[in-house]
Amino acid sequence: MKESRPIGIFDSGVGGLTVVAQVRRQLPKENIVYFGDTARVPYGTKSRETITRFSVENVEFLMRHNVKIVIVACNTASSLALDFLKRCFKVPVVGVIRPGARRAAGATKNNRVGIIGTRATIGSGAYQKELKSANPKITVFGESCPLFVPLVEEGWLDSKVTGEIAFGYLKGLKAKDIDTLILGCTHYPLLKPAIEGIMGKTVTLVDSAEEVAIEADRILDAHGIANRSNKKPFHKFFVSDDPKHFMEVGERFLKQKIRCVKPSE
Amino acid sequence: MKESRPIGIFDSGVGGLTVVAQVRRQLPKENIVYFGDTARVPYGTKSRETITRFSVENVEFLMRHNVKIVIVACNTASSLALDFLKRCFKVPVVGVIRPGARRAAGATKNNRVGIIGTRATIGSGAYQKELKSANPKITVFGESCPLFVPLVEEGWLDSKVTGEIAFGYLKGLKAKDIDTLILGCTHYPLLKPAIEGIMGKTVTLVDSAEEVAIEADRILDAHGIANRSNKKPFHKFFVSDDPKHFMEVGERFLKQKIRCVKPSE
Repeated sequence: MKESRPIGIFDSGVGGLTVVAQVRRQLPKENIVYFGDTARVPYGTKSRETITRFSVENVEFLMRHNVKIVIVACNTASSLALDFLKRCFKVPVVGVIRPGARRAAGATKNNRVGIIGTRATIGSGAYQKELKSANPKITVFGESCPLFVPLVEEGWLDSKVTGEIAFGYLKGLKAKDIDTLILGCTHYPLLKPAIEGIMGKTVTLVDSAEEVAIEADRILDAHGIANRSNKKPFHKFFVSDDPKHFMEVGERFLKQKIRCVKPSE
Repeated sequence: MKESRPIGIFDSGVGGLTVVAQVRRQLPKENIVYFGDTARVPYGTKSRETITRFSVENVEFLMRHNVKIVIVACNTASSLALDFLKRCFKVPVVGVIRPGARRAAGATKNNRVGIIGTRATIGSGAYQKELKSANPKITVFGESCPLFVPLVEEGWLDSKVTGEIAFGYLKGLKAKDIDTLILGCTHYPLLKPAIEGIMGKTVTLVDSAEEVAIEADRILDAHGIANRSNKKPFHKFFVSDDPKHFMEVGERFLKQKIRCVKPSE
């Protein structure tokens, strides 16, 4: 029964559902337990100590649901707390940074890669380090975009104001002649049209969600714990704040109905 | 020594320092202990249950510092948790809603009052109720402005984008011919120039911070616990996240140097 244990996924809120969508698509037999820390969202404006403390508590919650692997869907938590989490827990812990960086390193032709994310993610240098380790010839340009998360949470995905704010954040990166841009926050894929409109079609946008599902697949396979059962898998969602708002906003991210969300306490 | 106990003030983050500034100005002899819940900020997008739980924990922290009165500087917590806090604790607990509503009721000439705040504050109906109880003839128009808090936190106080977002939120209120507008969030006074630019000079902007200091003064006087000592008062600041960011942003709100901020744990 070891194989039927669920995959645990956590995020600071609702954004990690883009990772859930990819895991469901690529590992359709796996059970999933998702935890969104909606009472304490956002993480991207907070300190390493606080983000690490919250992340440990989130994984402890997932462990109580007997997960066999943990995916840290949140880019901020992956940037700042991943090494600590790996030391604290016995199950494999996978973050979104390395998979995203590797994909970007494979995609770039001119070795000029941009990375956008929260202030904490960009400030940590985690993506920069992984890109350099994948290919030391890559020059990395980082830019934090702190207003993108509240804009997405408000559903202002294609308003004129969103375009103006995006232009303010991205014009510097555009001038650097990058050919690849990592969307280093789970909220940002929802702003793809606005970002593409500014960066142009020649810049490849990299979304870590897809790649992290492939990485999780590899790890389950290597440990021999991929689920082989043909029973219909379960997908359980827990949040630390009110489930109602999560269900409403969540469907934008998951592109599917969310049937049941439970409070974590 | 009962009188020298400090005044306790809490907020979801840094915005409550506008209340500290008023308390310092109007009650210069009083000692102050401030707690900003910067690890869990913002409150305005969260549920009543979560906001109440956080507020109780915040007051418990202040009580450990032996405060003689608690001022809830946060409009969201005042709107949703005040009655519960009053039942839980023995010291007087004062929120910003009633003082702000009374001032607005005194200021309006045409009995048409607008109120802007977070989604939680506007949704609670707390200001609407207090305005009606102050003067049943008043018609109240509420509008939530969820992007104002992140804009202020980013320091985008007078950018073009801020003006456009403010116009989007306020144009409906402007059309209602209000003559008084309550700034129902401690962050909003920093956007006064942008808001005035849209509403015009004939609309009175009401900031609850000033009025709540007067209310606290009255309560201390009624209980006979105003501080009469001529010793230089202390002002202590505690936060649940990293003190550094709080000190930087805090000086914008307090309009004064903050010397020492300590972590709450």
